[in-house]
Amino acid sequence: MTTLPTTELFGLDNLPYGIASKPGHAPHVVARLRDHAIDLAGLAADAGGDAWIDAWSQSTLNSFVAQGRPSWRAARAWLRDTLRDESRAEVVAARLHPLTEVTLHLPIAVADYVDFYASEQHATNVGRIFRPDGAALTPNWKHLPIGYHGRAGTVVVSGTDIVRPCGQRKAPTDAEPTFGPSIRLDIEAELGFVVGGDTAIGTRVGVDEAADHLFGVGLFNDWSARDIQAWEYVPLGPFLGKSFASSLAAWITPMDALSAARTAAPQQDPQPLPYLRGEDRFGLDIDIEVELGGTVISRPPYSTTYWSPTQMLAHLTVNGACLRTGDLFASGTVSGTEADQRGSLLELTWSGKEPLQLADGSTRSFLEDGDVVTLRATAPGTDGGRIGLGEVTGRILPART
Amino acid sequence: MTTLPTTELFGLDNLPYGIASKPGHAPHVVARLRDHAIDLAGLAADAGGDAWIDAWSQSTLNSFVAQGRPSWRAARAWLRDTLRDESRAEVVAARLHPLTEVTLHLPIAVADYVDFYASEQHATNVGRIFRPDGAALTPNWKHLPIGYHGRAGTVVVSGTDIVRPCGQRKAPTDAEPTFGPSIRLDIEAELGFVVGGDTAIGTRVGVDEAADHLFGVGLFNDWSARDIQAWEYVPLGPFLGKSFASSLAAWITPMDALSAARTAAPQQDPQPLPYLRGEDRFGLDIDIEVELGGTVISRPPYSTTYWSPTQMLAHLTVNGACLRTGDLFASGTVSGTEADQRGSLLELTWSGKEPLQLADGSTRSFLEDGDVVTLRATAPGTDGGRIGLGEVTGRILPART
Repeated sequence: MTTLPTTELFGLDNLPYGIASKPGHAPHVVARLRDHAIDLAGLAADAGGDAWIDAWSQSTLNSFVAQGRPSWRAARAWLRDTLRDESRAEVVAARLHPLTEVTLHLPIAVADYVDFYASEQHATNVGRIFRPDGAALTPNWKHLPIGYHGRAGTVVVSGTDIVRPCGQRKAPTDAEPTFGPSIRLDIEAELGFVVGGDTAIGTRVGVDEAADHLFGVGLFNDWSARDIQAWEYVPLGPFLGKSFASSLAAWITPMDALSAARTAAPQQDPQPLPYLRGEDRFGLDIDIEVELGGTVISRPPYSTTYWSPTQMLAHLTVNGACLRTGDLFASGTVSGTEADQRGSLLELTWSGKEPLQLADGSTRSFLEDGDVVTLRATAPGTDGGRIGLGEVTGRILPART
Repeated sequence: MTTLPTTELFGLDNLPYGIASKPGHAPHVVARLRDHAIDLAGLAADAGGDAWIDAWSQSTLNSFVAQGRPSWRAARAWLRDTLRDESRAEVVAARLHPLTEVTLHLPIAVADYVDFYASEQHATNVGRIFRPDGAALTPNWKHLPIGYHGRAGTVVVSGTDIVRPCGQRKAPTDAEPTFGPSIRLDIEAELGFVVGGDTAIGTRVGVDEAADHLFGVGLFNDWSARDIQAWEYVPLGPFLGKSFASSLAAWITPMDALSAARTAAPQQDPQPLPYLRGEDRFGLDIDIEVELGGTVISRPPYSTTYWSPTQMLAHLTVNGACLRTGDLFASGTVSGTEADQRGSLLELTWSGKEPLQLADGSTRSFLEDGDVVTLRATAPGTDGGRIGLGEVTGRILPART
């Protein structure tokens, strides 16, 4: 079972944002305080947060995220002050709803979704598995953060069931491809970064400007059908092996709640081209855990990730591609250097050759129907303790054949 | 110069949809009749088209497209009847605006954008150029319509200037990558298909149901920076070599206007897996022409495209990926079997080795700053003549370094 406490991680130094509804009411913006959702538009109306009432009355975070970093910071300061203000205790209490009484929704309307491949250890593991006799990393890997666009319309909120996808697969030894349910269904433990603030097409966001566009972070599980992916991905990249579903946490932790989690970015050798350098290159000391069937099977450390989120955003826009509020980019699978820090079953079982043993005595090479996978994470908070990222969880349903 | 007439192609058997505005007024839905835009919400209010007034008052086609095929067909029948009704001639005339007096906008809010690779001749040419000693087609090519997700947020309307992208490139003979403006900037002549009607995640749209979700077609130029693409695309596919901009025509031709253009789909050998078979597999007899700097440099025939639009849509959803109104999928570069039917400069100049001669005496391997590229196309209409697809055009601006 999880080693993480469940509620103290969501105190005043955290306050992640989400979207919640009660039966018969429209979804709107909330913040999480311990085991409660704060109705933010209501609180703002009662306690002087007029600047955010409209944005917090919406059914996604996008309007709020569009307001930009000065507004995000002012809102967070206002919220923390209000929650600490004993004279407002009754006003606050009236706007708290137990999490057990609300439904959580996808926090953002995703504009474009990009998945990167930013963990050196993950890319190395994948290279060793698929190209045992070649170089583990492709020649471009240390020169640019490799990424590709995924399907924005199938990003789902934590808790959504995942139907096992069907598709074509062909092992190298098969004469012809066959069709059916994926038999190598996998997870990828990632962080998803929510982007705010539109930019103009033809312009760039540099490494040192990127943080102005980073609203927050959510745990992200990029479900992957390895057999479908292996057959389809040459030459244009992953498509149906990924596009059936990707799960995003219901809670987006503001970057400002992670200021104490900032770490020095890993040294980069060779030094990348100038547009990927910059002062604001950082890692995040976020410890992830992956639970499958009640067993923690891995603890990937995000701090080891080679490419900084600010480098990913700078790379994404260096060709003039514009940003839109609601863009989501994910880190790619996070894998540490140790065997029990790998962020995918592909790596944890070395392509199925070394099955995992779960606490109930069963073994897994890849996911079985009924399996529940949950990602959790903690990081240093600004008030001296640790804060939690909202979990992302999903259960595998049988394929619809 | 173009060989196509410019106005007779947009008669009563065509009536493509778009979004237009006059100075000081909000954009809304129009149809094109010869050299005029019809204010559809206004005409609907005056002439009994009540069912569509709301949808046609919007600033994108999405609300109308969301109504589904029965509504698209009823609207088209109503519009054709109204335009033919002599008793309504004055009502109609009051709602016609010369195209010279309106600004055209991106016709749809693009949800997800997917680019396919459906032309056998294009894939063969690319394979011969990049792998001269290997098989031209990858082993999967005839088993599934290869595709990948592109950037929805950088789909721009015809007429938008294209800033030459910067990025990393590394020739095989270079020791290190360098950064700078793309020096192998290319076009891809494609058709873009606009999707309507949301589906549920976990469900599929079969080949024979796909036409219910095909609203219409627009010419599409998938600008491509070949040098950036070549360095980045292994192993996860094209990214910044494509994501700087893709141009969509301002006019979306309804599929019902193309019923006479339907042709037998090319025979497929080997026969694909059952989910890619179906009765409603068709080609489209659409003749494209590519004009560069005033010279028609190619005439790609869409009818030769190997994978049918209905197969592409069935493949896209076979893993349970949902559709959203506003999804856009493009065919990939259309290339015929003849040398002057190739849909990209990469193929037309055989990777720059055989430069093209333009009418002004200059030559081109790839695009130069100031170049204007225009795609036009015609197809058999339902009334015996030919109809036009709205052009897609763009001018290359110098890189912003």
